Amino acid sequence: MLAEIITIGDELLIGQVIDTNSAWMAEQLNVIGIKVHQITSISDDQQHILTTLKEASERAQLILITGGLGPTKDDITKQTLCKYFDTSLVFSETAYANVEKLFSARGVAVTELNRLQAMVPANCRVVANPNGTAPCMWFEKNGCIYISMPGVPFEMKAIMEQEIIPQLLTKLNRVIIHRTLLTEGVGESHLASLIEPWEESLPSFVKLAYLPQPGMVRLRLTAYGTDRKVLQNAIDKAEKELYPYAGNFIFGFDNDTMESVVGQLLRSKGMTLSTAESCTGGNIAQLITSIAGSSDYFKGSIVAYSNEIKEQFLGVPHKVIAENGAVSEQTVIAMAEGIRTRFLTDFAISVSGIAGPGGGTAEKPVGTTWIAIATPTETIARKFLLGDHRGRNIRKASMAALNMLRGKLAE
Amino acid sequence: MLAEIITIGDELLIGQVIDTNSAWMAEQLNVIGIKVHQITSISDDQQHILTTLKEASERAQLILITGGLGPTKDDITKQTLCKYFDTSLVFSETAYANVEKLFSARGVAVTELNRLQAMVPANCRVVANPNGTAPCMWFEKNGCIYISMPGVPFEMKAIMEQEIIPQLLTKLNRVIIHRTLLTEGVGESHLASLIEPWEESLPSFVKLAYLPQPGMVRLRLTAYGTDRKVLQNAIDKAEKELYPYAGNFIFGFDNDTMESVVGQLLRSKGMTLSTAESCTGGNIAQLITSIAGSSDYFKGSIVAYSNEIKEQFLGVPHKVIAENGAVSEQTVIAMAEGIRTRFLTDFAISVSGIAGPGGGTAEKPVGTTWIAIATPTETIARKFLLGDHRGRNIRKASMAALNMLRGKLAE
Repeated sequence: MLAEIITIGDELLIGQVIDTNSAWMAEQLNVIGIKVHQITSISDDQQHILTTLKEASERAQLILITGGLGPTKDDITKQTLCKYFDTSLVFSETAYANVEKLFSARGVAVTELNRLQAMVPANCRVVANPNGTAPCMWFEKNGCIYISMPGVPFEMKAIMEQEIIPQLLTKLNRVIIHRTLLTEGVGESHLASLIEPWEESLPSFVKLAYLPQPGMVRLRLTAYGTDRKVLQNAIDKAEKELYPYAGNFIFGFDNDTMESVVGQLLRSKGMTLSTAESCTGGNIAQLITSIAGSSDYFKGSIVAYSNEIKEQFLGVPHKVIAENGAVSEQTVIAMAEGIRTRFLTDFAISVSGIAGPGGGTAEKPVGTTWIAIATPTETIARKFLLGDHRGRNIRKASMAALNMLRGKLAE
Repeated sequence: MLAEIITIGDELLIGQVIDTNSAWMAEQLNVIGIKVHQITSISDDQQHILTTLKEASERAQLILITGGLGPTKDDITKQTLCKYFDTSLVFSETAYANVEKLFSARGVAVTELNRLQAMVPANCRVVANPNGTAPCMWFEKNGCIYISMPGVPFEMKAIMEQEIIPQLLTKLNRVIIHRTLLTEGVGESHLASLIEPWEESLPSFVKLAYLPQPGMVRLRLTAYGTDRKVLQNAIDKAEKELYPYAGNFIFGFDNDTMESVVGQLLRSKGMTLSTAESCTGGNIAQLITSIAGSSDYFKGSIVAYSNEIKEQFLGVPHKVIAENGAVSEQTVIAMAEGIRTRFLTDFAISVSGIAGPGGGTAEKPVGTTWIAIATPTETIARKFLLGDHRGRNIRKASMAALNMLRGKLAE
């Protein structure tokens, strides 16, 4: 089955909006074995829409259309679809029930403009839109499926995930299962070579995708086939067999983040945390406190951007910095122990490094970073050689520090 | 003049890469009065490329093509262009000089693979690519301009900004000037109504665009015409006349950020800063230290996420918190003065608020935020009622605090 995606909207052609929908839809289709042949963005113009639909239907068997369905722009796409299918608009009880449900949930009366949104071409099947009042419409003609959806990304995504993909899978008699594993502390290419034997042992119906982000690489496993149980077992087996190769880098699953995983561990153990940050400049505290309820386990941080503050407020002995430098094992150990005893927390993180672009020396080049973790029983420290980009160094050091703490919490 | 954009690459059709290039190019073209009629993404397939080029040339007079020009994928797009224009590849001295220049700057020898990148269709004019080895090629045939560029965004953008747009402007006999003003402390719709009389007074050749981001709204003025001097005067006049309407919200221009503007002010005055953060959780320190060289004026921060730390390390009297709460004018004033005297800085910022989603009361709902600025001569405090989204509240509070400091520094 070949597919095409058509996005309608003047805002796309003046560059006001980036079309992120098409890539997302293409990825979903690709995963279920449907190849996307072309993506076309056109304006809200009837003749242009008609021509584009006709040309696409000559090349593909599935056409996904987004945009042009808001209450004020309604007419153009729906009227054009009527013209294309040689039919007319009728009132849809299903579409209207959806509009009413959404409005009553918000405690608002349905307006006449929104009532009009329940008018749809007579030959379509209305598909539920859980997050909006614009209807999703499914057409079939001459062996080609046409699906018209709203262009608002969170509406489109919910429709695709909850309705379109499952219905296409049913039509294709296929099932799909995803699992994402989050890794930290290893670059994409190094990880790829580490897990190569495992990757080669995956059954052909389990696909692996590398999704790198600053400071982490996500591994997404996708199993695609006909028997849910077989797929589930294959995914479970693949996950289990990955651990011997890369288990020490895996810190979470699916929608986890490093800060949420660390937060859950601290919460479940009833433990508290403080941080003493030099080169990360408060970024670790900021990540931790981005999680709602983090005040239950996070007591605070001292960002010590000068040596005097490291000495005076974290109790790092002047001699330690004078003899070893601010970026050293001895300094980060004193910083971590200093904040832990001062802020009276169970655990503490400290970081001192050269984020760049200035400040590097032959002995300690830009990217040199020391991280320490103080626990109730010991303090450990580790040196990292990160890169030469300030923003990425701060991000990587923060992730590495949180992952070191995670390791200690998981022990 | 009508334009079409064609993006070539399998990665687009499997959803691995979002096509951000097209929107950016469309915006640039729109600004110089060239309307984009259609954007088409296709795979690295010769027949598909040939058909798409032919169809586009029947609708438009300018066709921008990106992608398919890397050293390993070279052949397909360039060979296809040869076939399309009925010509063959020749060695281009201009393209090779560019490859050599880039390699010698990196101290690397030119490889055979890169030498091949200097082979271009005989009928093209090579346009400089300052950031990469792939050539940009300009073709003209039957009244239609075809421009083939690499798909790497930072290469494409440099070529467009430095070469294509200026050359198109020369061809159209037009000039364009931009100026962007950055505002903080006012939402997009409120700003729009405040400056409506000014916006209506703008000459027809000066266009205004609202570019909202979390915590700020950028206003971009674009003047488009034939006489650079007239445009420059019109932009200068428009900027000057905007101040009576919104001058107190404007904090910077073009590529400034709030943290860079505040940093420049501190540096130029030889002044230092510290922060005491509760609800922002280190985000202000993190923004300030994202700027290289910030250790010259930033000494550090205490993130006081518990009342005990506010009392013990910032010197907020127990009575102040007990009587007024941690989110109060009295508390933030004590926090700002506490960090300023302890860290021995000229200025200090403090923030305490309810970021949410929990912690709100009838008297102090989620979003209630107090901010104080301590200066060498006084301490001021202000209450903000932000929204109900934790991440945006943290961002908005950080921007508001930095802008309050900016106001004091600019006095």
